[in-house]
Amino acid sequence: MQAILCAPGAIIARLNPRQKKVNNLRQKTQHLRAAAAPAAAVEASELDFGNYIADKNKAIEQALSDSVPEMYPERLHESMRYSLLAGGKRIRPCLCIAACELMGGTMEVAMPTACALEMIHTMSLIHDDLPSMDNDDFRRGKPTNHKVYGEEMAILAGDALLSHAFEYIGRETPKSVPAERTLRVLVDVGKCVGSEGLVGGQVVDIMSEGADADEVTLETLKYIHAHKTGALLEVSVTSGAILAGAKEEDVERLGKYAQLIGLAFQVVDDILDCTQTSEQLGKTAGKDEAVGKATYPSLVGLEESKKIADDLITEAKELLRDYDPKLAAPLLGLADFIKNRQN
Amino acid sequence: MQAILCAPGAIIARLNPRQKKVNNLRQKTQHLRAAAAPAAAVEASELDFGNYIADKNKAIEQALSDSVPEMYPERLHESMRYSLLAGGKRIRPCLCIAACELMGGTMEVAMPTACALEMIHTMSLIHDDLPSMDNDDFRRGKPTNHKVYGEEMAILAGDALLSHAFEYIGRETPKSVPAERTLRVLVDVGKCVGSEGLVGGQVVDIMSEGADADEVTLETLKYIHAHKTGALLEVSVTSGAILAGAKEEDVERLGKYAQLIGLAFQVVDDILDCTQTSEQLGKTAGKDEAVGKATYPSLVGLEESKKIADDLITEAKELLRDYDPKLAAPLLGLADFIKNRQN
Repeated sequence: MQAILCAPGAIIARLNPRQKKVNNLRQKTQHLRAAAAPAAAVEASELDFGNYIADKNKAIEQALSDSVPEMYPERLHESMRYSLLAGGKRIRPCLCIAACELMGGTMEVAMPTACALEMIHTMSLIHDDLPSMDNDDFRRGKPTNHKVYGEEMAILAGDALLSHAFEYIGRETPKSVPAERTLRVLVDVGKCVGSEGLVGGQVVDIMSEGADADEVTLETLKYIHAHKTGALLEVSVTSGAILAGAKEEDVERLGKYAQLIGLAFQVVDDILDCTQTSEQLGKTAGKDEAVGKATYPSLVGLEESKKIADDLITEAKELLRDYDPKLAAPLLGLADFIKNRQN
Repeated sequence: MQAILCAPGAIIARLNPRQKKVNNLRQKTQHLRAAAAPAAAVEASELDFGNYIADKNKAIEQALSDSVPEMYPERLHESMRYSLLAGGKRIRPCLCIAACELMGGTMEVAMPTACALEMIHTMSLIHDDLPSMDNDDFRRGKPTNHKVYGEEMAILAGDALLSHAFEYIGRETPKSVPAERTLRVLVDVGKCVGSEGLVGGQVVDIMSEGADADEVTLETLKYIHAHKTGALLEVSVTSGAILAGAKEEDVERLGKYAQLIGLAFQVVDDILDCTQTSEQLGKTAGKDEAVGKATYPSLVGLEESKKIADDLITEAKELLRDYDPKLAAPLLGLADFIKNRQN
């Protein structure tokens, strides 16, 4: 697949007919999006999620900072902290805590796992950005880890964050939680990172890059999204529920909710990559097309992609219908937030 | 520190007086070593360890192969299996199983953790060999992972092996083992890999490379060895003991034994690097001096290094004096094996 110019800074290349169609759709929908954005911004449940994040934010940031202290070897811990504490929306920790609270647990019970999930997410970003991988210079508006600390330190900081995540769940989860539950969470988290999870999705993603668009099917794209992004979001929700002692059917239902919003998240990510500027995103825009990556807009067009995202979000919210609306509000709000986000 | 020629293929460089002294010592001790080798080879307890390894080898290799099946995405699992099943002495799995059996447990109880320790060891080798790290082309006589599968796949295969290790312990440890014990093992394993273990040692090692020899103290060298190699050997032994339900004092005593043989292992490694050829080692010899790395021979001389290794082994064996000699035989034998190994 050849590169498409879809945002300032992206590579300009010769367009094939399919890409021209996508590009036209993009321009058309961007217009619609601009008109729709203000209305979406006041969606009630999205405000709930915003309030929830604001409410938990201080505790999460403090816990994250405490989880990786400044100690010897200083440079390694500095490198780990540089990326772990670089901001971000902390969606995974919030999901974990919200699911735990929805199932009758407390923030304290979920917090070590919430932090561990952010460590794992951070590890995946550090390694993804490496020169031999996506070769990204900026992340969340700051130079990437390897640009600041060098490639070898970035690899090792990622490794340390990954192993620390497991240690942290096992060591810091309150002893009031039965060991069997914590053990199950550790197994689930391990699976969601490895070859059947995040890393598996990343490998298929890499192998699909530059391939002819016809070779990358919607099935492959779904596999990539379900594993690269979905798995960690899913375990964020299910681990919170498990730690709270939720019934099996509730764990399954919440897992399904997370799969749906995870897929929606990625579809929206694909849409944003070719409709927003680098400034709006805080990272290089238009990169998917520039490297010939299969995306929802490139496979089914921009309007159909938008419809898919909306349907996924509707279905996800439907799953939460029978829970206490007050406790379910953050998860409902997150769904709308994902649908409406601009970066 | 400048490079010393100490084995075929190593970089030839101008020698300073200290290096000349080390080189002379090396030649002298190599002569003694050649004479002593046949006698060492028949040491009784070392034979016990050889027999123990031979006895367990088939089960360990089978368990390792089963632990990472050939599945989608095939290329990733192939890359993981390429390094995991590339042979090696399987010292860590053997230590784990032997310690478990010494404390009254079975091989079946220890096997998942034994496999996980080898996954972690393999991950550390794959990442260490990367171009941005040690940039090694060969490992155990075969091209390194990134030479075969490319740098990005090697990074991801390491990440997948690391997370799989934790999942595997949690999922595969027999349910007859109380969850609290398995959880403790997971925490210990996590700590021994991260910034306070293997990765921490690796970072200090990298930061010490090329530094003036006077700046790298024996304390720093001990830190590197205790963390880069010692931590994983220690947790191999203690996790086996914990899984068997050993008393705290036994876990501590066995941990101390492992620290001592771990340090001895690294001192001998330093000695071998500058006394053996690449062919004998199955990896590039003379590399420590070539890259100006601080080693025991470079800091205290070759004969003193040999004495330190012998003393560590004697002390380690002394700690096992009060156990059933038959059950302790593999651990006693491993100590002698480490002392006498030639590659």
